[in-house]
Amino acid sequence: MHPADHLCERVAATGAATCVGLDPVVERLPAAVRPSDPLDARSCAEAIERFSVGVVDSVHDLCAAVKLQAACFERYGAPGFAAMERVLARARQSGVAVIFDAKRGDIGISAEHYANGARALGAHWTTINGYLGSDGIEPFLANGQGAFALVRTSNPSGDALQALRLADGRSVAEAVADMIASLGASSVGGSGFSSLGAVVGATKSAEIAALRARMPHAIFLVPGYGAQGGTADDVRAAFTRGDQGALITASRSVIYPQSGGGDWRAAIRAAATQFAAEIRAIAGGRA
Amino acid sequence: MHPADHLCERVAATGAATCVGLDPVVERLPAAVRPSDPLDARSCAEAIERFSVGVVDSVHDLCAAVKLQAACFERYGAPGFAAMERVLARARQSGVAVIFDAKRGDIGISAEHYANGARALGAHWTTINGYLGSDGIEPFLANGQGAFALVRTSNPSGDALQALRLADGRSVAEAVADMIASLGASSVGGSGFSSLGAVVGATKSAEIAALRARMPHAIFLVPGYGAQGGTADDVRAAFTRGDQGALITASRSVIYPQSGGGDWRAAIRAAATQFAAEIRAIAGGRA
Repeated sequence: MHPADHLCERVAATGAATCVGLDPVVERLPAAVRPSDPLDARSCAEAIERFSVGVVDSVHDLCAAVKLQAACFERYGAPGFAAMERVLARARQSGVAVIFDAKRGDIGISAEHYANGARALGAHWTTINGYLGSDGIEPFLANGQGAFALVRTSNPSGDALQALRLADGRSVAEAVADMIASLGASSVGGSGFSSLGAVVGATKSAEIAALRARMPHAIFLVPGYGAQGGTADDVRAAFTRGDQGALITASRSVIYPQSGGGDWRAAIRAAATQFAAEIRAIAGGRA
Repeated sequence: MHPADHLCERVAATGAATCVGLDPVVERLPAAVRPSDPLDARSCAEAIERFSVGVVDSVHDLCAAVKLQAACFERYGAPGFAAMERVLARARQSGVAVIFDAKRGDIGISAEHYANGARALGAHWTTINGYLGSDGIEPFLANGQGAFALVRTSNPSGDALQALRLADGRSVAEAVADMIASLGASSVGGSGFSSLGAVVGATKSAEIAALRARMPHAIFLVPGYGAQGGTADDVRAAFTRGDQGALITASRSVIYPQSGGGDWRAAIRAAATQFAAEIRAIAGGRA
């Protein structure tokens, strides 16, 4: 199935244009799943796997997608990579849309290898970096896969390159947006959205609206809501209409909820429910 | 030891400002190391490990560095990642400078995880993508590590973004070069070179010379020589003087030499020797 059509179906089925980000860090795990030896890579990998499986099982029916941060697993070498395989397989099996947040970017056979690797992992989507141009993007759209390319990021130093002004008046981020819109035009599904989406941080709503106009068929993957300072107006600007065309992500605020004791999985489930309700209140869509 | 000082010592010791790229592809392996089952990931991972270890053992004293393409190993999942760990450990142990060609790029704790992961793998250097600004670069310079940031790539679509002209007259690649020069200024070693280097494809010598002037303390990692069309003039422009300041890489022309039969390791050793001699003839340096 076309990855954008699949994602739109997920949003419709769950009523939640949300993505739960899995960025597991050993130091923040609930006591019940902490590693027996925090200095041992295998023990840490097992712990983040237990935690991640618990998160997937707790939220898969409450969000359109889950996004797994590759760095958190790669950190622990081959045992971490094996844990990542099992978590992604579990997510894929649950029916949720699966985003491999790896920010890969290479060319030729290397890009093909990364794309095939992501497919073998069970990812519907991979996040990618388009600095190398179409050679670094198109391989990630083969075989029915989808990709979210970094366009505008919300980190403090994101401006250093992305906000530079070109001679033709566009910002660098807008030039990347035009490239993404052009490359994605040939892979628009029945939903009206392309298998090439864009990562657009929830920073300034005026900028998000301008990028939305440049990429009418791209699904926006929007980090930065809540903890990182994104507001309701920022989020609203990312959608095409209602709850269509954007996927708002939250990681820490959902997977490390501030609850006083009790079952950690229930607390995460409550946080994912609350997150979906917040986005629904902003964007509309079915409750 | 400072990674740039280490690399300069390696160039002096081997008389070869060269890097052998390990991009193993199952279809091109010598008959002696092909996988027993080319459709099985574990069998393929074992085959590329046998091959890669053979390449490292054959070339480590003939080149300053080896560069391992992460995608070729990630392609085969956890068994591929485990193979990559062993190949990198072997390379590290041999004394050659080790470059993890992963083109990673993320921010915050994720960037720290990638950097720590690369260190655990034994890499002296990691290739990175600077689209996210300093947040995506500085973590890779911690703990005595070095990084090569993508500045100008030689692939056909590299121009799409990198050659765009800014309002201030610079190209996007030149703006990235200025960012790299600025971020790397505080980590210059006794050799006069920074632990933050630059990937600059061997495309046009005039462009390379302009980037060289903007990044006087950056070691240039230069792919694209030979097979991809880079010329002697292109290569010469990357060095600061003599054989200083650049590392010319070749992958396919060395690891898949066109020789008629015989010992594949001897053929690779001969190709690495020939490659070093070519670069020495262009750049000078001790024979």
